[in-house]
Amino acid sequence: MHKLLEEIKNIVGPAGVLLGDDVSGRSDNWPPTGGCQAQAIIRPASTREVSEVLKLCHAAGQSVVTHGGLTGLVGGAKASKDDIVLSLERMGGMEPVDVVNRSITVDAGVPLQKVHEAAEAADLLFPLDLGARGSCTIGGNISTNAGGNSVIRYGMIRDQLLGVEAVLADGTIISSLGGVIKNNTGYDLKQLFIGSEGTLGIVTRAVLRLRPLPRSCNTALVAIESFELLGQFLSDMDSALGGTLSAFEVMWNDYYRLIIGDGSNHGHPLGSEHGFYVLLESTGGHEKSDTARFDAALEEAFESELIVDAVIAQSKKQREDLWAIRDDIERLTQMLMPPIVFDISLGIPQMDDYVKEVRQQLTERWPDSRMVVFGHLGDGNIHLVLTVGSHDPGEVHAADSIIYEALGRRQGVISAEHGIGLQKREFLKHSRSADEITLMKTLKTALDPKGILNPGKIFAIEEN
Amino acid sequence: MHKLLEEIKNIVGPAGVLLGDDVSGRSDNWPPTGGCQAQAIIRPASTREVSEVLKLCHAAGQSVVTHGGLTGLVGGAKASKDDIVLSLERMGGMEPVDVVNRSITVDAGVPLQKVHEAAEAADLLFPLDLGARGSCTIGGNISTNAGGNSVIRYGMIRDQLLGVEAVLADGTIISSLGGVIKNNTGYDLKQLFIGSEGTLGIVTRAVLRLRPLPRSCNTALVAIESFELLGQFLSDMDSALGGTLSAFEVMWNDYYRLIIGDGSNHGHPLGSEHGFYVLLESTGGHEKSDTARFDAALEEAFESELIVDAVIAQSKKQREDLWAIRDDIERLTQMLMPPIVFDISLGIPQMDDYVKEVRQQLTERWPDSRMVVFGHLGDGNIHLVLTVGSHDPGEVHAADSIIYEALGRRQGVISAEHGIGLQKREFLKHSRSADEITLMKTLKTALDPKGILNPGKIFAIEEN
Repeated sequence: MHKLLEEIKNIVGPAGVLLGDDVSGRSDNWPPTGGCQAQAIIRPASTREVSEVLKLCHAAGQSVVTHGGLTGLVGGAKASKDDIVLSLERMGGMEPVDVVNRSITVDAGVPLQKVHEAAEAADLLFPLDLGARGSCTIGGNISTNAGGNSVIRYGMIRDQLLGVEAVLADGTIISSLGGVIKNNTGYDLKQLFIGSEGTLGIVTRAVLRLRPLPRSCNTALVAIESFELLGQFLSDMDSALGGTLSAFEVMWNDYYRLIIGDGSNHGHPLGSEHGFYVLLESTGGHEKSDTARFDAALEEAFESELIVDAVIAQSKKQREDLWAIRDDIERLTQMLMPPIVFDISLGIPQMDDYVKEVRQQLTERWPDSRMVVFGHLGDGNIHLVLTVGSHDPGEVHAADSIIYEALGRRQGVISAEHGIGLQKREFLKHSRSADEITLMKTLKTALDPKGILNPGKIFAIEEN
Repeated sequence: MHKLLEEIKNIVGPAGVLLGDDVSGRSDNWPPTGGCQAQAIIRPASTREVSEVLKLCHAAGQSVVTHGGLTGLVGGAKASKDDIVLSLERMGGMEPVDVVNRSITVDAGVPLQKVHEAAEAADLLFPLDLGARGSCTIGGNISTNAGGNSVIRYGMIRDQLLGVEAVLADGTIISSLGGVIKNNTGYDLKQLFIGSEGTLGIVTRAVLRLRPLPRSCNTALVAIESFELLGQFLSDMDSALGGTLSAFEVMWNDYYRLIIGDGSNHGHPLGSEHGFYVLLESTGGHEKSDTARFDAALEEAFESELIVDAVIAQSKKQREDLWAIRDDIERLTQMLMPPIVFDISLGIPQMDDYVKEVRQQLTERWPDSRMVVFGHLGDGNIHLVLTVGSHDPGEVHAADSIIYEALGRRQGVISAEHGIGLQKREFLKHSRSADEITLMKTLKTALDPKGILNPGKIFAIEEN
């Protein structure tokens, strides 16, 4: 073991350094397949240890890839044989919920679900939620600016953070854990570490804002015939449900047919002939008046002929069954083998035309290709899942280019939630100008002049 | 006129350059008193002109102070005789409201109120609101991260921005005007320009997010006896009003007595013997169910003995009368001559103890001093207004030190909304660590290596 690792071991102790098979038996990507190539996995137990390790790495010019729950989807945690991995898995401390300030302070290695549980035990809600909740960590959520199912109501994790502690490349600890909502005392430094995928600093701790736990939940699946009416329906529901709209998930006809089709174990809550299906949900604080308002809003939409059919969940089980249609990613990817998955944002006015254009281009090139569309329409974020019948990298790349090029022309965004990592680096130029990328590199160089933090992710620093 | 100004005139035209009395007749601070000392006031008419002017200034090492509506309260727009002022007053363009995407793209020089009017004409709301709405500009709102009356529901302007265009010190235009809610494509560069008081770039344009225009409004003034119950009442109302709570403004007894006291033209909606008064408001989308819920929430608070008295506004006039008590800053400052005004944040659990401590310290030093307390308790932000019977700078400084020192010990924030500018620079250390301030300077140096943008504001770059 070379000198640097010996010095690191003096800081983190023998349990804090993994080598050899303990490294290669682990993954650095999702889905987990093993084969991490890093020199070593370092497991610090405190912010101070992270700082001391980074001081050594900085002095030695040693590159560092930070690992959280390893549920990212863009290769943001991939490590080469030159890197060492810093895993925050031993940093799982949580302070008690502060019920008056409605916040909780946690270490970066805490899984999202543990925060949910602690909040709920105090009759509060941590509204960030996503499928990987059991594995993903708060540190990873912050460094990828995680979104998920409740963005329309509560925003991304960027909006849930009252404070962040992070360690810079040279080991400096930047601790902004005051936990207040409003703070206009100079630059809001925590923004640097949110969504920057571990390239500007390592998040070690955070103060999370908690919200009241909803006391009511109303859910419906609604059928709508045209995209134009869909936009109007979103706007009307956002008005009518005034601040309580908590989900507006849209499924295009192709998605709905595929999910409830032959061999599916979902029911047929609505006929499959409609243009679009909306899973609508509202959560509030007063069961009776919330339900009255939800029903009135749907009734108004019927009367103004925005919607043509609807089913309102009458029980928790019915609610879960409706959500299961929206969430059956397993069936989706099985039916579209091999799947290519996209996570894009664009203005709602451009969306319909965009989907039609890329569908046509895909069909022209691959007559047997298939694409389904669904997503968080209320946030301007949709997912496209498609197959061109091949996982040949050249074919996949050609599909990527069709999707991203048509998006770039509409000022769309190639990654709404997942980040850039390694996988989308090449396409970054479709969403960000050359001057923006140059400014990102200026920040990177200012904060990490030796380029030791998660090198090569988002952009290659040496590119010009 | 020297060479640089001649070159600038070639870019912005003769109407774009003010000199001599046209400069000294203007102000660079609030309240306006004239006496701007800058060499010249430059009035570009487009982002391109801002860029061309900055290129020249950057090459010449010429310092630039940007002016918006000049309603800031911390000296952030003060210009010395070495500076030139860049006023964005000719950049007042607005695109039509995009009703489907619910956004509007405007130039930085547009006054806030014009955005309100455009949004309302499209049956939408731009929720940022503050007293200076007729004069303050969107560019100034962004560069100070303005807060105001609706933060508890909608957040600061940081949360209302879908895109920002800004010009860097060297003239580079960073244009991120895509207008989508979710964008995880590398660093979120717009964050750099929000709240950095014109020191990292000049904001020239923005895409603002609009919300549904509320269709209902319920308002009450409520009396509560203890601070402990106040926290519980906030928490309960936030739960019960589930997402529709739009104001939770608290007045300490001293504030309420002063405002409704002798010579006041306010009525006495509630007796003046209670510990605290809360102006509670809820806005929603469905009049009938919203009112039912609001009334039920107050009734529950009575039953659980959280509140002891309440008056619910029965008309627009009654609502305005209640708000007039909260907003009568004119009477407040007249009664506390000469006034010293503070705008601080701290955790709600620390607030009561903090107010008691500083009140005691003030009374010990100035037995005749007087302080009243009120503010946006729901955001953890309160205002202290006090008088020590003198405007001698030494006395004022001693009062500042009492307020900020006790705050720093509680991890409080010396500026919740107003920013740092020149006036609070000395006290920044009470809210931000030395490492944080060093990192701010690293950013400043990276983005503005010659230090030409609003020099000396927030921190003096040469300090160590």
